[in-house]
Parts: sequence; C-alpha cells; structure tokens
Amino acid sequence: MTDAASAASASENYPARMERAVRSTIQAGMTGLIVMPGPTLTWLCGYRPVETERLTALLLVPGGKPRLFVPELERPDAEKAPGAALLAITGWRDGEDPYAAIAGHLTAPGRYGVSDNTWALHLLGLQRACPGASFAALAEALPMLRAVKDAHEVARLAAAGAAADATYEEIVQLPFAGRRENEVAADLARLLRRFGHSQVDFTIVGSGPNGANPHHEAGDRVIENGDMVVLDFGGLLDGYGSDTTRTVHVGEPTAEERKVHRLVREAQQAAFEAVRPGVACQEIDRVARQVITRDGYGEYFVHRTGHGIGVTTHEPPYLVEGEHLPLVPGMCFSIEPGIYLPGRFGVRIEDIVVCTESGGRRLNNTDRDMWIVS
Amino acid sequence: MTDAASAASASENYPARMERAVRSTIQAGMTGLIVMPGPTLTWLCGYRPVETERLTALLLVPGGKPRLFVPELERPDAEKAPGAALLAITGWRDGEDPYAAIAGHLTAPGRYGVSDNTWALHLLGLQRACPGASFAALAEALPMLRAVKDAHEVARLAAAGAAADATYEEIVQLPFAGRRENEVAADLARLLRRFGHSQVDFTIVGSGPNGANPHHEAGDRVIENGDMVVLDFGGLLDGYGSDTTRTVHVGEPTAEERKVHRLVREAQQAAFEAVRPGVACQEIDRVARQVITRDGYGEYFVHRTGHGIGVTTHEPPYLVEGEHLPLVPGMCFSIEPGIYLPGRFGVRIEDIVVCTESGGRRLNNTDRDMWIVS
Repeated sequence: MTDAASAASASENYPARMERAVRSTIQAGMTGLIVMPGPTLTWLCGYRPVETERLTALLLVPGGKPRLFVPELERPDAEKAPGAALLAITGWRDGEDPYAAIAGHLTAPGRYGVSDNTWALHLLGLQRACPGASFAALAEALPMLRAVKDAHEVARLAAAGAAADATYEEIVQLPFAGRRENEVAADLARLLRRFGHSQVDFTIVGSGPNGANPHHEAGDRVIENGDMVVLDFGGLLDGYGSDTTRTVHVGEPTAEERKVHRLVREAQQAAFEAVRPGVACQEIDRVARQVITRDGYGEYFVHRTGHGIGVTTHEPPYLVEGEHLPLVPGMCFSIEPGIYLPGRFGVRIEDIVVCTESGGRRLNNTDRDMWIVS
Repeated sequence: MTDAASAASASENYPARMERAVRSTIQAGMTGLIVMPGPTLTWLCGYRPVETERLTALLLVPGGKPRLFVPELERPDAEKAPGAALLAITGWRDGEDPYAAIAGHLTAPGRYGVSDNTWALHLLGLQRACPGASFAALAEALPMLRAVKDAHEVARLAAAGAAADATYEEIVQLPFAGRRENEVAADLARLLRRFGHSQVDFTIVGSGPNGANPHHEAGDRVIENGDMVVLDFGGLLDGYGSDTTRTVHVGEPTAEERKVHRLVREAQQAAFEAVRPGVACQEIDRVARQVITRDGYGEYFVHRTGHGIGVTTHEPPYLVEGEHLPLVPGMCFSIEPGIYLPGRFGVRIEDIVVCTESGGRRLNNTDRDMWIVS
C-alpha cells in the first residue's frame, strides 16, 4: 500500500489540483472547501487516513495556504503525505473541540463545499460551531471537480482497463459449468492482482437467474450448462479504477438469449457513438435506453447507463436522466446498459470510455460478442 | 463473508435491538432515527450494503414499522437481510429523488438521530428536503445505543479477545531482530485469521522510534536488537472486534525502558481497577493519566485512555476527559494508556475490558510484563 501510494504520487500534480479546486470554488461563488478523508483528499494531497470519529479536515480558501486539521497523534502520518509541503498542519488533542478550531477559520455568512462522504457527525459539528455558514456537498456544488482527467490520469485508467481486459481474456479460458460462482469470482480477483491491481473492489459473477439481479455479487450457486453469466469486475491499479462487464454463455444459447445480448450490445455501441464534447450526460443514457425500449425491453433496464471513474470506481459524471451537465474532453466514465429478466437471466456490457475532442475512446477493448464458455 | 454473516445472525436479537432503539429515541425526546449503511444498520437488521452516492436509509419512528429505503436495484439484497422480516422496504429508481421520498415520512418540526457515518451528501439532501426537521449524530444524541452489550455480544467479544491473545502468544515465539516490521505485521494478520478472525483491521508494529508514533502502522524498518516494539492488532471474529496491545523488547532493555514500561503497566492496572458501574468515563482516563503524570511523563501520553468496541473497533463509550456518562454493566471498551518519547520509543498496553456489576473483567489475559523477544 505504501509502495503503491508513493509510486503513484510521483506523477501526481498536487499544486495544479489545489489550484483547480480553488478556481472552481471561486467560479461556483463559494467561500471555500472542507475536505475530509476520502478520495478527494487523496486526490488533492495524497493523504489517505481512515475516516473515524476523530476529525481530519482540509480547509481550502482562496488566497490562503491550505490548512489540514489533524488529531495530534496522527500528525506524523500527515507530515509524510506526498503533498504535505503544500499544507499548513494544525493538530488538535483528544478533549479539545476540533470543530471550534475550524470554525475560527471560517467566515459567516459563507458557503462551503464539503466532501460527499464527510461523516454526518463531523458536518453537524461544523454546522453547530459555525451556524452562520452554509454547506453543500461537492457532488452538487462542484460535481465535476475531479471529473476531467489529465493525461497522466487517463494513462492510469487505461492501464487499469488493460489489466481488466487481460483478466477477461484469461477467465473465459477456464471452465464455468460445475463450478460455483464464488470460485470464478476468486479467479477474477486472483487474475486482477496478477495483472497489477493493488485492490480488488468487486467480482460479480451472476449466473442464470442471479444475473437478473444487477447487484448480485457471487454466491454458492453452481454454474450449469445453458446459463448466461454476467461477469463484472474491477478495482484499483496504481491508484486508479477499472470496471468492465461482459456476459458470456455456457454452451449453446437460445434464440431469445441471443436477441437480448445483441440488443444490449447494440445499445452500448449506440451510446458509445453518441459521446462527444458538449453532449449532456443524460443524452448518453437516453440513446442507450431508446435502443432497448424500442424492442420492448425498456422496463428491464433498471439502472442508469454509467458513472464516472477515477480514484474511485463510482464518481461524477453520472449518465442518467436529469443530468444536464455537458461532457468535456478528459471525462472518463462507464457505459453499461443491461437487461434483467427476473428469475431468468441478465445481460450487461460495460466499457470505460474517455471523452476526447473527436468523440469517445474505449479503455476496454475485449470482444463484446457473447463468448461461449465451457 | 456471506457464511460468516449468516452464522453470526443466528444469535442476533434484531427485534430487541429495534425495540431498544425506539425506546432510547423516546427517552431522548427525539422523533425518530435515520440509519444509513454502516455498523448501526448491521446491528439493527443485519443488512450491510456498501454506502455509496445512492441512498439507502432505515427510518425508525416509534409506533410505526421500520422502513428501509433502498435503490430499487438493491431490493433483492435488502430482502435477503437477516432482519428483513421486520422491515417495510421502499425502493426508489435512478432519476427519482430519494430524499423527498423519506421527507414524506418525516414530521416537521421533528428531531431525528442520524448514524454518525451518514454521508454529508445524504444528510444535506435530507436537510434540504425537510427544512423543518433537525438532525443530531447518534454519537451525541444516543451515544450509548450500542454501548451496553448483551450476554451473546460479550461472549463474542471474549472469543475475539481470546483469538487475539493466542496470536500474541505465538508472535512472541517468532524472531524479531533482522526482520522488517511489515513481515511481523503479516505474521500477526496470518495468526489472527488462523485463530478465527474473518477480518483483520490493523496490525501495528512500531519498532524503536516508530513506536513513538501511536498511529504508525508497520513499515520497511528492520527491527534491531535493543528495540522496544509496540504490537497493536485486531479485527473481527464472528462480527465482533478484538483490539489488544503489548510492548515487547528485543534483547536487554535499558533502565529507562524498564521504567517507562512499568509505569504504563501501572497506569493500565490502576485504570482497570477503577472500573465499576456509575463511574464517569472520564474518571478512568484521569486515573491512568495521574499515574503517568505523577512520574513526569504526562506530556507524552498524547491520546485518550480508551474506546468502546463491538461490531466496530472504535465506538462509544470513549474514556476521555469531558465524557461524563457513567459506566454501565455490559459496556465493553479498551484501556490503553501509552507513553511516546519522540524519536526514541513508545510503550502502550491495552486490554478490552467489560464492566460488570462487581467491576471490570478483562477480555485479554496475556502477560502484561515486558516480554523479551529475540
């Protein structure tokens, strides 16, 4: 973990990210940002403590040096963070009120963005210590703060995607029939690690009726000949995420299985081809949904078409009805339509795609046809 | 994970916990509880989804059936939760506003407790959807909701403690000098799992000067003859936590090392002996601190004396100055004073202790003397 983190941090441009955060804060008419442990803190300065009941918070205000409030006993860790040189560090001790300490640096009335995963315990502490200030979640106030990736980040996502692709190429060579979903899932995890992932986040193996539950992970069910099998897996490589889905079939598929798979593939392709700068996120969702709805399966496509990916595997931009924000070059996101027939089977096909000036570029490139496995 | 979860749930009394939660809510003069994914949700109904930007929330209001709001695509998982029979489940789909859905069940003005780790994104969504309601973190509104353990829970904590003790007994037989902290940490993790842990949460190996940083985990440093080594490790066994610390020495200690170790042991013993029902949490901290301060090391005891433990390894009650709540039979917590001499070495000794009618009972029982390892 330490090694991976330091390797990753070598090419991170923390000053540029801090600057982007400050610029975005000003553009959004906000007073500052308060970022607690989690992906945005990691992205801004490389520090990755565990979030606990002890407050750790980065306060970013235009014109001032970023200030990190930490429990005094975690100060040595904070001082070792890759971006620590950019920070003023203020320690607080057990028994002191850290919310009051931060409030002393806030202005009221003022409007502050807070990281989405900030604990309610801490947000309520801030609201109490500074009743004149107001707070907004970054997902709403600055949804696109981390959404546009720089070239280094796209290269990392591409490397993670390539490793996921290598995993898929291997898994389809292994037997499916007669093995439990859990066993195939363990193989996916092993392969992701073998191809360089430091962390495996999910290894979904949804066989037969289990594939009709889009969030089924992997269970005790023994895979049988005739099963459709959804494989959806990913994790982190060098600090950046992978996430790809292919749906394979054990033995000969029925005509309906072929039809549903073809339809999902067609929807995925149409959505991919709709990617270009300026198109609203919801438009990509609509294009995929239209294909599936046209053939009468609309009610079985029960989730949004995609989500952004970066230092986390789920982040803005979300490709969903109601998201009017436009695609911008550098945005990276999944395109993953699916059809789920309750009690029967499911099909999902997913690639990570980066928006470029000239359209979409896929970071997953394995065959999207329905592979027949044994 | 699935197997462990279902084995654990067999002896969980979810109806009694729901009832305790409702009773506590009424006693605290609150209108209801809103619990998002995390330990309190697991404790109340056995459901353990990952917390994401998609809202999952349990609404508990006196007199009504507990209502779980879930993303529609996660409904099948929610319906499989061990305590699902106690719940009304309401699904919401991507594109719908889940905060408005919950707000329709809230009363304003009303005061609701929210789980500490609820994401700010979700709390701010609730505050916006129901501006007349107010919210308080459970750590402050109902700090002791999960603090008093029933006999089953104490038995689980004792089993986890015994497994941690077995781990310690084995680790001190292995060589220290010439090995990296990371290697010893890997042994700790392996042993914890061998003795039944399903999850390892931390394996701190702080050798020499690294021991003076109480939150140092384990690094590349090669342990040398003459080092003091802090070993602090734990995780989950059958859903309940372990957490114990012993400080060993490689080869012959100096007079000062002996003195500091003896002082910490004395402080830990004094604090343990102070445990009895009715004593304020802060009193336990004071007793430990007094011993260490008396001998001039007060400024080097930089953290609180302890924290509760249960389905998480850090939860109320906190043994810290300012915590006036009294100990109650069934409360389980760590007692872990320490002395940290910057750049030199650290000593910490920690047991999990349960408060009984007649005083404290330790759930860790390995030798607290300074073991000499090789």
